[in-house]
Amino acid sequence: MKKAVVLLSGGLDSAVTLFLARSKGWQAHCLIFDYGQRHRVEIKSARCIAQSINCEYEIIKINLPWKGSSLLDQKMKVLQRESVGVSKCQSVKVIPSTYVPGRNIIFLSFALSFAEAIKAEAIFIGANAVDFSGYPDCRPEFYDAFRRMISVGTKAGVEKKRIKIETPLINKTKAQIIKLGGHLGVPFELTWSCYQGANIPCGKCDSCYYRAKGFKEAKARDPLVSMNRLTHVHPRGGHGLMS
Amino acid sequence: MKKAVVLLSGGLDSAVTLFLARSKGWQAHCLIFDYGQRHRVEIKSARCIAQSINCEYEIIKINLPWKGSSLLDQKMKVLQRESVGVSKCQSVKVIPSTYVPGRNIIFLSFALSFAEAIKAEAIFIGANAVDFSGYPDCRPEFYDAFRRMISVGTKAGVEKKRIKIETPLINKTKAQIIKLGGHLGVPFELTWSCYQGANIPCGKCDSCYYRAKGFKEAKARDPLVSMNRLTHVHPRGGHGLMS
Repeated sequence: MKKAVVLLSGGLDSAVTLFLARSKGWQAHCLIFDYGQRHRVEIKSARCIAQSINCEYEIIKINLPWKGSSLLDQKMKVLQRESVGVSKCQSVKVIPSTYVPGRNIIFLSFALSFAEAIKAEAIFIGANAVDFSGYPDCRPEFYDAFRRMISVGTKAGVEKKRIKIETPLINKTKAQIIKLGGHLGVPFELTWSCYQGANIPCGKCDSCYYRAKGFKEAKARDPLVSMNRLTHVHPRGGHGLMS
Repeated sequence: MKKAVVLLSGGLDSAVTLFLARSKGWQAHCLIFDYGQRHRVEIKSARCIAQSINCEYEIIKINLPWKGSSLLDQKMKVLQRESVGVSKCQSVKVIPSTYVPGRNIIFLSFALSFAEAIKAEAIFIGANAVDFSGYPDCRPEFYDAFRRMISVGTKAGVEKKRIKIETPLINKTKAQIIKLGGHLGVPFELTWSCYQGANIPCGKCDSCYYRAKGFKEAKARDPLVSMNRLTHVHPRGGHGLMS
């Protein structure tokens, strides 16, 4: 089986990406990052998603002492629906406070190192540039530039052993991603999207907004929301599902 | 003063780069990486170099559990002068076992995050593609690709706030770098080049080879070697100079 490194955040998009990679015959090696994010609950989600399909994973701890983002700095506030208006427009107009400087570049650079070391042929990332918060490092042109960098800046690239960067969701709407995930059997109840670190999604941040919009447009029920209505506690958080 | 992030390994090239950046009026913020390197003695060197000029620094700990390099994996051997023959030739023919997958990409991605967060305008790295071990991520084409990635993949790039990648040593011989360092007052006795983790340089690895070659061609004396001849202990290592 061909090996692939899959970046798994614990969110909906990366979970669909993992299931998609496996459905296409890739042997997935997940990378999960503990980078000081406010919503570190997503790390547990990521682990549960990987464990639910017996997929290998590594959790990489990263220290970014300079912060520079409301996702890292508890003194800053995550505003409500900061990027509304950017949706369905790949050009970046407003970059919200939740932007983490260099985040996807750092994540991909670790993935690249991992891929070279284990001789993986691809890196999968669930970046999306349609229903998204306007982060520059989620857009196709960034991934094209990263691909170019691999070809000239790595042993694999120089030796013409290709490491592909796969962004299968980049041009899909959130509704399309959710429908695809449904077909693939993604356990959406294990995923986490909310930027806030609380036990239940805030329903107000960018990430909650796009998730709710996606489920609504896909005419599907978000099992996480339904569960929370019943229990007020996330399924990973003490109900013995996959803690 | 304009701010710059300077990657400081503790080696000769990065020390010269730091002194050069400061001589050109940059306020330097050093980044030092503890990435599991065999020659972790260089971390202490880097700290001593920064402290010697009262320069701010951050030490970033990185875990690369997949290893894939003789610099990370103690079970592998660092061969003697692996890359001899690559010298003075920027095209890569033989990539030695000391190549660390994705290393400079990881280092630069942290530097980029730091630079964005503190609004620095440049990142300095002492990469050299003349008297070098043939690492692909030391060559000009890699840095050009990284520059392109910054312009499309970061908030700074999108907002046209330029973060330059400065590689002032890339086309210099080691002898030229040593002469430059001499003019700038670089404390070469505090630098460390050897890939082995011993108390004194092995004199046989690639890194020792290029250092010795550089001092010989520059008709200069390497104070580290002279000191070691007298004491058999590195000046940082217990003689109270800058421990």
